[in-house]
Amino acid sequence: MRRAEAAMKASGGRYFEDFRVGQVFRHASPRTVTDGDVAFYRALTGSRFALQSSDDFARALGYPMAPVDDVLVFNIVMAQSVPDVGLNAIANLGYAGGRFLAPVYPGETLSAVTEVIGLRDNGGRTGVVYLRTTGYKDGGTEVIDFARWQSVRKTEEGVPPFAEQLVPQLPAAVPADALGAGLPVLDVSAWDGGLSGSRFRWGDYELGERIDHVDGIHIDEGTAMMAIRFFGNPARQHPLPFSDGAARGRWLVSGALVMSAARALSFNGLGNAIHVAAINSGRYVAPVFTGSTVHAWSTILGKELMDGRDDLGALRVRLVATRDHLAADFPDRDEAGAYLPSVVLDVDFWLLMPR
Amino acid sequence: MRRAEAAMKASGGRYFEDFRVGQVFRHASPRTVTDGDVAFYRALTGSRFALQSSDDFARALGYPMAPVDDVLVFNIVMAQSVPDVGLNAIANLGYAGGRFLAPVYPGETLSAVTEVIGLRDNGGRTGVVYLRTTGYKDGGTEVIDFARWQSVRKTEEGVPPFAEQLVPQLPAAVPADALGAGLPVLDVSAWDGGLSGSRFRWGDYELGERIDHVDGIHIDEGTAMMAIRFFGNPARQHPLPFSDGAARGRWLVSGALVMSAARALSFNGLGNAIHVAAINSGRYVAPVFTGSTVHAWSTILGKELMDGRDDLGALRVRLVATRDHLAADFPDRDEAGAYLPSVVLDVDFWLLMPR
Amino acid sequence: MRRAEAAMKASGGRYFEDFRVGQVFRHASPRTVTDGDVAFYRALTGSRFALQSSDDFARALGYPMAPVDDVLVFNIVMAQSVPDVGLNAIANLGYAGGRFLAPVYPGETLSAVTEVIGLRDNGGRTGVVYLRTTGYKDGGTEVIDFARWQSVRKTEEGVPPFAEQLVPQLPAAVPADALGAGLPVLDVSAWDGGLSGSRFRWGDYELGERIDHVDGIHIDEGTAMMAIRFFGNPARQHPLPFSDGAARGRWLVSGALVMSAARALSFNGLGNAIHVAAINSGRYVAPVFTGSTVHAWSTILGKELMDGRDDLGALRVRLVATRDHLAADFPDRDEAGAYLPSVVLDVDFWLLMPR
Repeated sequence: MRRAEAAMKASGGRYFEDFRVGQVFRHASPRTVTDGDVAFYRALTGSRFALQSSDDFARALGYPMAPVDDVLVFNIVMAQSVPDVGLNAIANLGYAGGRFLAPVYPGETLSAVTEVIGLRDNGGRTGVVYLRTTGYKDGGTEVIDFARWQSVRKTEEGVPPFAEQLVPQLPAAVPADALGAGLPVLDVSAWDGGLSGSRFRWGDYELGERIDHVDGIHIDEGTAMMAIRFFGNPARQHPLPFSDGAARGRWLVSGALVMSAARALSFNGLGNAIHVAAINSGRYVAPVFTGSTVHAWSTILGKELMDGRDDLGALRVRLVATRDHLAADFPDRDEAGAYLPSVVLDVDFWLLMPR
Repeated sequence: MRRAEAAMKASGGRYFEDFRVGQVFRHASPRTVTDGDVAFYRALTGSRFALQSSDDFARALGYPMAPVDDVLVFNIVMAQSVPDVGLNAIANLGYAGGRFLAPVYPGETLSAVTEVIGLRDNGGRTGVVYLRTTGYKDGGTEVIDFARWQSVRKTEEGVPPFAEQLVPQLPAAVPADALGAGLPVLDVSAWDGGLSGSRFRWGDYELGERIDHVDGIHIDEGTAMMAIRFFGNPARQHPLPFSDGAARGRWLVSGALVMSAARALSFNGLGNAIHVAAINSGRYVAPVFTGSTVHAWSTILGKELMDGRDDLGALRVRLVATRDHLAADFPDRDEAGAYLPSVVLDVDFWLLMPR
Repeated sequence: MRRAEAAMKASGGRYFEDFRVGQVFRHASPRTVTDGDVAFYRALTGSRFALQSSDDFARALGYPMAPVDDVLVFNIVMAQSVPDVGLNAIANLGYAGGRFLAPVYPGETLSAVTEVIGLRDNGGRTGVVYLRTTGYKDGGTEVIDFARWQSVRKTEEGVPPFAEQLVPQLPAAVPADALGAGLPVLDVSAWDGGLSGSRFRWGDYELGERIDHVDGIHIDEGTAMMAIRFFGNPARQHPLPFSDGAARGRWLVSGALVMSAARALSFNGLGNAIHVAAINSGRYVAPVFTGSTVHAWSTILGKELMDGRDDLGALRVRLVATRDHLAADFPDRDEAGAYLPSVVLDVDFWLLMPR
């Protein structure tokens, strides 16, 4: 049945047995990111970061115009990879080693390539596929690369385990000296903490400090559906009649929207975090369904100077998002190490901030 | 009451008795189509056609930039006509002879003119009005024309039938030699089937072949409401308190969104169908209400070479959309010729595809 | 608790006791208004004003391109002020003296400054803060200023009344000779009443005339949520779990969307009202919750010629919006002077219209 489908014109996606280590997929649907995308992303997230909102603010610092939010770039590239490698994934198990390599501006066209870097068969109905995806802009400039691993369906139960098994080494974090590639040198004297919405710079954050981002984003059905189509991710676990969410009259919210909401919420407390420079690791801990309100809190995991530049410092931040639970008490893991039920996202970023 | 209203500043629209064959309406609200519209249209439909998504992809083929999706152009022009000719229409009964005459690019301004080409009074509370609408862009270049007929309310029951009755001849299909007007000559050697998302070109499709487009688009209330306002169609059967949809707690989804969703779904299986060149005929068979999921399938009705160009071929495709019914079994008419209840749209397109 | 929070990185906003007359807040999050914002605003409102929709139409009259809708400019600037002065406001009590000082075009960046111009302590849990907000575009050109007063929470019940009490004089209306600042001189001979959607010019409106704007805008949850994030207003009474709206399963619709909907509805009857030149006064009379349909009617309060220009005339218009109540019977106040329950917005504009 599936093999017959595969011979037909429409694609139902690859299954675990279809992957081999070293396979490379050059993805379809390159996308020119525009002012329209930036405006719609604001309507999804309410993001208020000055650098990404104002061409004037950006130009004063040395950018040609306001760059596109890094988390939007990540999610567009991620979505581009899904038709080739993610249609039959039932879960993204984690991200690692994500590096932002150049800023993206409206008018530039994003495309993506993914390599299979590992495979692990558990003997059940699914296997784990390890992938590295690289995003490019016009003329082949790399803008991002990141690894992820996901649980992918097999065609049939009982397919014998693969001979090939490879679990790749993935870094626990991106080294600080690799951060900020491709960014212009900023004129920090032009940094305007009034316009940026925060008086706190890199030096004002302390290791271990926790920040309740206070606000919340309610994710209704309309927002969730438009987000899925906007990001461009056609993955199956999203709204289709056989969705678990639908069975309960609610729908699964895409991870892209959850991460974007958390990043936007982090403005209130990290308003000067002008770039996400790396996704050291990340995991969608629990699903968010429509009708929930997302909150977020952060904690400072590390602080580093950056080679060759005195304008920006790097802040390693763990950003945790919750559903229907205010972040004032910093919901996290319980004593046994299990996440509390309200925790939905746990991501470890390198952020860049003016010094 | 209505006549008094007509003397007032706001318009309640024309009724059947207000139409005469040969009347010409130059419509209000010209609209510059922008990158913003393209982005929002993606959020509505999730469309992933490379040519319409990527300026780089478009330029490599010989376009100045990514053209606006033809179905969006059609629906904007259609909506522009409604305040003059459609406010009291209770249903669009059909489309015919729709030709796309020039591509539209962001920054160009669309306007529209409609001529009354026929009238038929059935003696009841409504009559049928036949219309031909032409859309223009900057400086008067025709970009589309199409005929439609719609059932329009009379002011009062019992108005005596018109003397004037004219049912126009409408073509069953647009001749293939009229297709592709205004398109640049494409550099087919630059066609990249990896980026376009399909390895199947014009030569790979067979007459009678059926394609299940697999995916689905769930139409929630927010999507439906924003779509109506985005397309700009103020027709009465849309969300107002006396809507039939509201009576059931659900709302009527605009035809513009249903057709757009079907076109976007057709990407999976017809990814190289880079232009809709004609709407030979089309009909909204049954209403879609909010809360439904739209699916679609296609069948190949014809294949033609095109005069004077060897880059593209024409594929005549019947595109059928359904509500809450996967298209895998190609739902269609029953043995008596009546549409199955799940069928909502039946449209006959000429599509253009690289050879 | 609150004071402790204030020392932390995230902001919970100012309370009544934090304000002093003469304080000036330069607001964060400058925002470049783009074609994307214009497109999304259309999806929110369905606005069909030709001048704001078509670059061609605008250029024929002497504009460099289509200007951004004045009501959108007002609401963006208004939202920019909220993090500094409105997070703990429980209601906007009124607007006065709002002047539009220059048109705004896509690509221009809006920023805002607010001065505290009055304070009144009622002795209860809230006090009234009077504010004047000025919006700027690139290089400091003033585009709008307006006064408002709002009821703001105190930190604790029982805080003793302030010594400082000042209720400022606010004008009942903006004088007509101050209108239209910064507008280009229009080539009225190029005015095209067919494209604008109305044959009625300034001279065709009579004092006291009432206009039912006929149409309605249904505000579903998705529209309301995206509007809040789009405008950028993070005020607390908006969707958070402790919202009154949530308690009833419905959400409070932002005033920005209500006013924008009323302005868009006014197209049908005031299609040639190409600019809002002043907000003489305005008040959100009652809340709108998601699931309601907004209607609107207008009455002509005044007509004035404009100093030094014979292209435009000024029309003073009272625009009233209702919820779930058609405007055909012009719902207003009852005999005792109290608003009918269906009335939600009562705003007094100066509109400009070709003569």
